[in-house]
Parts: sequence; structure tokens; C-alpha cells
Amino acid sequence: MRPKTFDPDEATALALQAFWHSGFEATNMPDLLKSMGLGRASFYNAFGSKREIFLKSLNLYFATVDAHLTQAMAQDATREKSVTHLIDAILAVTQHESVWRGCLIGNTALEMGSKDTEISLQLGRGVRMLRKKFAEALKKPSADKSFNDVNVEALALHLVAGIQGLLVLAKAGLPRADIARARNLLISTLN
Amino acid sequence: MRPKTFDPDEATALALQAFWHSGFEATNMPDLLKSMGLGRASFYNAFGSKREIFLKSLNLYFATVDAHLTQAMAQDATREKSVTHLIDAILAVTQHESVWRGCLIGNTALEMGSKDTEISLQLGRGVRMLRKKFAEALKKPSADKSFNDVNVEALALHLVAGIQGLLVLAKAGLPRADIARARNLLISTLN
Repeated sequence: MRPKTFDPDEATALALQAFWHSGFEATNMPDLLKSMGLGRASFYNAFGSKREIFLKSLNLYFATVDAHLTQAMAQDATREKSVTHLIDAILAVTQHESVWRGCLIGNTALEMGSKDTEISLQLGRGVRMLRKKFAEALKKPSADKSFNDVNVEALALHLVAGIQGLLVLAKAGLPRADIARARNLLISTLN
Repeated sequence: MRPKTFDPDEATALALQAFWHSGFEATNMPDLLKSMGLGRASFYNAFGSKREIFLKSLNLYFATVDAHLTQAMAQDATREKSVTHLIDAILAVTQHESVWRGCLIGNTALEMGSKDTEISLQLGRGVRMLRKKFAEALKKPSADKSFNDVNVEALALHLVAGIQGLLVLAKAGLPRADIARARNLLISTLN
């Protein structure tokens, strides 16, 4: 019997949704196959293992978030608007039906990063992508002419840590009003 | 046969180490019993379930970190020293044999927080404990006389998010030099 054909990119996108929702460990093979709409044979022929499709899903996540964030600040002429739009785009994409699902980079870092060198190396690429987005935003001219020159790389790192921390607190049940305050304070570190 | 006696506080401390190392899901019952040095019967008689001992472990974690952070800034007269010592105490306690194990509050938030209301409510208590420590530090007089009055509660929240985010990036493999830069920038948000 000829196996059913399927689009591997679409199957990877479906795997990404499953891993993003539940994490690597808690996504068992039956759940994963169901999410991807694949039988075992097709899955193993195309993707090799749960770990391999997870690594592919991470890459797809980085590319998708990169494109999303590029678009989020494309129209912004100033650094303040760009940073605000980056932060708000991250806060938007890390919620699903008003539940915080977090950033797959942060989720994976806390689940696997400290014990798994291959994973932490790959996560490093995701973190560098986020830092690059914030650095691009910070290199735009400031709306405030009295703005002192900032250390773009250091401030980009600070903003990436701040948004990741905010997502941790959101998943720890931080009230919405406090999330909004922390967002505002993160943006105000530009000044 | 009379069951062996054991110290439930010590057994909870051992469970905490196991959960901190591996997370809730990945700590299976045989591992947990081995870590606690208990047989199944003694464990279930004393603690009821893996979930119950996990909730107890979280409470022990909050109390232990609270005491540790109180001690870390006890001798500090200024807000700057207190905040620096709080941040460095958190960075120290979240490493074990130079591997990042993270903060159990953040780890648990990303593993379980979005799907488990009881857990996220309990994590909220841990986050409030951390915010209270930073607020206590920020209420101390500034070494810099030109220091403007800050919004203590908002800045405390900002610092807690910042340190949690830094731990995410550390577990994502951020180079040590960048961790040091992000630490310095977090401390400098006081100015």
C-alpha cells in the first residue's frame, strides 16, 4: 500500500502547536501523532524520532517568531514605538485563548536546558534572534532628542530577559494589572 | 512490623531537591521514593500523593528562599547594596555544581502554571514573597542623595521579572559574560 502523502512543513507546524501547548516530556507519542494527523510508520519514515521533530519544531518557532516580530515593528520610525510593539507582539503571541502558553524558548529552557547541551545550544540561537530584533529596534532614532546613546547590545539583552521574566510571572498567575505595570516599566527602561 | 520512623521535614527537604532537579512530571515515583529514602507504604501514609508532597515542597522552598534572602541583605544599610545582594543570592542559589537549576517558582510556572489553577495560586504566594524581599530592599535609603523617589512596588516587580528572565536565559545557554552584563544592567535600573 502506498503511504498517504502529507506536507512535512504542515505536519511540523502541527507538532509545534502540540509541543508549545504541553512541553516536550508531556507530549507523548500517541498525542503527537494525533496532533500531526499521522500514523506511526509515516511519522518515523519522515521525522525519525520525537526528538528530531522537536528540534525541527524549535527551528520553525524561531523562524515564525522572527517573521512576526519583523512585521510588528516594520512601520515604526522610532525606537520607542518599535520596542513597544515588539513587547506587545510577544505578549500577544504567548497567549492562546487568553491562557498564557509562554514562549517556547523559555518553556524549553526551563524544561530541558540545564540537562541537555544540544537543546541549550539550539535555544541559544532563539535567544540571539530575540536579541537581534530588540537591537534592530533600539538602533532606530529616538523620539526624544535628549535621549542619551545607549549600549544597544546590553539593553537588548535586558529587554529580552525582562520579557521572558514577565512570561514566567504571567504563568505563575500574576494579576493582569501587574502584568500591565511590569510591561510599562520594561518599556520605560528606555528612558 | 513497626514502620521505620523518619523525620517528615527532612523527607520533604529531600523531595524538594528531587523536584528542583527534575521538575514535577519527570520525577517519577521510584525516583522520588529513592530520593526521600522511603518505602511506598511510609510515603503514602505520611504524604498521601506525589502532588501533595510537591505542594509541601513548594511551601518549604518559599520559606527557605525567604530566610536565605532576608539573611543576604540583613547587614546592608542602603537600597543599592540590598538589591545587589538579593540578585546575587538568587543567582547563587539557582546554580548547583555550576549547572543552572533555576528557581523552583519559575520552573514550576513554566511546567504547570498555565494548566493548573491550584499550582498557579500557590506560585503566586512565592512571587509575592520575592516581590516583598525586593520591596524591603528598595525601602532602604539610597546611597545616592540625588536619587528620586521610586515607585517601590512597581520597581520590585520589575526586578523580580528581570531576575526570573535572567534565569530563563541562563538555562537557555546564555554565555556567562552576558549573564554578568544582564545582572549589572538589572542593578543599574535603580538609577
